[in-house]
Amino acid sequence: MDAARKTPDQVTQRLDELYRRLQDAAASQAGYPCNQLFDYSELYRFLGLSINNVGDPFHNSNFWVNTHEFEREVVNGFAFLMGMEPERCWGYVTHGGTEGNMYGLYLARELYPDGLVYFSEDTHYSVLKTMHILNTRSIMIKSRESGEIDYDDLRETVRIHRDVPGIVLANIGTTMKGAVDDVPRIRGIFRDLAMTDYYIHADAALSGMILPFVEEPQPHRFEDGYHSIAVSGHKMIGAPLPCGIVLAKRDSVARIARAIEYVGVLDTTLSGSRNAFTPLILWYALKRSGLSGFRKAVAAALAVADYAVARFNDNGIPAWRHKNSLTVVFPKPPHSVTEKWQIAVYRDIAHIITMPHVTRATVDAIVADCAAALQQGDCS
Amino acid sequence: MDAARKTPDQVTQRLDELYRRLQDAAASQAGYPCNQLFDYSELYRFLGLSINNVGDPFHNSNFWVNTHEFEREVVNGFAFLMGMEPERCWGYVTHGGTEGNMYGLYLARELYPDGLVYFSEDTHYSVLKTMHILNTRSIMIKSRESGEIDYDDLRETVRIHRDVPGIVLANIGTTMKGAVDDVPRIRGIFRDLAMTDYYIHADAALSGMILPFVEEPQPHRFEDGYHSIAVSGHKMIGAPLPCGIVLAKRDSVARIARAIEYVGVLDTTLSGSRNAFTPLILWYALKRSGLSGFRKAVAAALAVADYAVARFNDNGIPAWRHKNSLTVVFPKPPHSVTEKWQIAVYRDIAHIITMPHVTRATVDAIVADCAAALQQGDCS
Repeated sequence: MDAARKTPDQVTQRLDELYRRLQDAAASQAGYPCNQLFDYSELYRFLGLSINNVGDPFHNSNFWVNTHEFEREVVNGFAFLMGMEPERCWGYVTHGGTEGNMYGLYLARELYPDGLVYFSEDTHYSVLKTMHILNTRSIMIKSRESGEIDYDDLRETVRIHRDVPGIVLANIGTTMKGAVDDVPRIRGIFRDLAMTDYYIHADAALSGMILPFVEEPQPHRFEDGYHSIAVSGHKMIGAPLPCGIVLAKRDSVARIARAIEYVGVLDTTLSGSRNAFTPLILWYALKRSGLSGFRKAVAAALAVADYAVARFNDNGIPAWRHKNSLTVVFPKPPHSVTEKWQIAVYRDIAHIITMPHVTRATVDAIVADCAAALQQGDCS
Repeated sequence: MDAARKTPDQVTQRLDELYRRLQDAAASQAGYPCNQLFDYSELYRFLGLSINNVGDPFHNSNFWVNTHEFEREVVNGFAFLMGMEPERCWGYVTHGGTEGNMYGLYLARELYPDGLVYFSEDTHYSVLKTMHILNTRSIMIKSRESGEIDYDDLRETVRIHRDVPGIVLANIGTTMKGAVDDVPRIRGIFRDLAMTDYYIHADAALSGMILPFVEEPQPHRFEDGYHSIAVSGHKMIGAPLPCGIVLAKRDSVARIARAIEYVGVLDTTLSGSRNAFTPLILWYALKRSGLSGFRKAVAAALAVADYAVARFNDNGIPAWRHKNSLTVVFPKPPHSVTEKWQIAVYRDIAHIITMPHVTRATVDAIVADCAAALQQGDCS
């Protein structure tokens, strides 16, 4: 008489079905930046414990069942990648890109409560949601055809509002086209306008784990002018759970820590309870791969991206990609193709992202499907 | 020459040390409401895939590597526990209590943009942080000695501000004392003041999974008058990762969905990428335990709470607990005791929470430590 309860066999059967479905879906996924190649089985034993990283990883707590020590090492590792001395950097492992961007924008708003936020129309939709949640004024700036923010529109718009501090969310790799906003140039706009009160947060969800590992990266380091940066963990690194890292300058965070203490709270993170398993995942990935491992993985994935562009072009499909980007952009194929390969579309374009699990064989199959659709004149 | 990289042995050694430390810490934890008794090993295989529940679990997406189907079953299961027909209920699995409360307060603010938020001084600190993030006006209301909100102070304060909508965060089980705010009485205050624009969000982090399973529960169902409710998954149910559920009335969410669509976003959740593993954890717990399993676990834990109160009292320590609460409150013992058992303190009180992993033997040991400290006159 307990309708909610299922027998162990019934439960296992449902899970088996789900697992098979997810395995197939993961294998055929080429349109989202989620690396499916990883093995964290050495960490599974930690799922037998209720661990929780509540609070600031750099503060002590009397709740001990945490992985703060490993989280600090992850923060320091990412600080190194972004060219920041660990002692000048603060950060934590987030539940994903949204929380990292929200943290950066929250920090900016705390520093400049009357600030106006600017971001390009190619910015990830979750940032719009975040602006709404933070209850902050914002202006969407036009994008160039390349996907970069339109610097002229930004300059003109900031100029009109130069009486209030400016807060820019810059994309280091846009969602659809992998375009990188030029952070030094954005900083230059504020300097030209003699504005000293400005803040730049960088959304480097995917490219934050690509650019540190290439020969000629676009600007992506703290010295290039941003004040905080969010990088995803489940994208290039690969993780079973969404996660990410947010880094900010320690002195900015110290200023808002005081503001928060005023309301009786010492915790400088956004969440209360925080995942203690994802810091282990990121720690494990960093320690096992090392810089050399990521350098190799990035080079291999960029080679597949090059291969994809060439194969599309060989088949008369005008695909292209930005320098140092795994995002291969091409005209939107029919629904049957986007559905089969879980390809994201926006207006008249589509993309595949050659994450490490996307092989040349997968690329061949996608290109063949697109070419077949094109021949049938099925351009939906 | 790759300083970041460690050998597999070095990595394993660090993890082994951590695991031993966490096992010890978990076993001696009596002060936080994190059930340490669970076994989700049947689910570990899903950690071999990059799964992601991005978006609204009730909407379709072309990102298939998700567990939305299981998430919907979890939402419907919790809707049942809170006495709401599934078709009138909307919800999703959150990263924990903070996100659930933020969602409820966000929803309230969207419905009543000029609303004023009221919550008692016994409310969890993360709510203060959330008010700050949401950039919303709020007033902290006094608490009664019991830990409940002071209804007289609430009535007087709301009366003074009856020109603006009222938003109350009610605690169904406060953090320190396990007190339950009387939701029908709070609703009565608004009705008495002839205010029709009000919203009540219930923070039922721990007690939300206790009250549905006892004989004489305090008001905790939708019919009692709240509009949304957040319950934690890693507390009474037990989970290796913080998680929770937020439920709201479907028609309220539909109203804000329109507002969000206006800015081009269809997603009604707070996060972008969302954990797809925690819905499996909650689904598994609900299906394997069923109502009868939780009823048994709650009864057993309440019996241990009773035992703890009796043992403390036998030893001259004035411990007490609220009806249907696992939170046993007693005078703050010295630091050596609070540290050993990871006991949370607030001003001059402390508590232990008899979650399912806290045995009578553990209670005996804690009481003995407290009694010994008392005899030594060491009352810190």
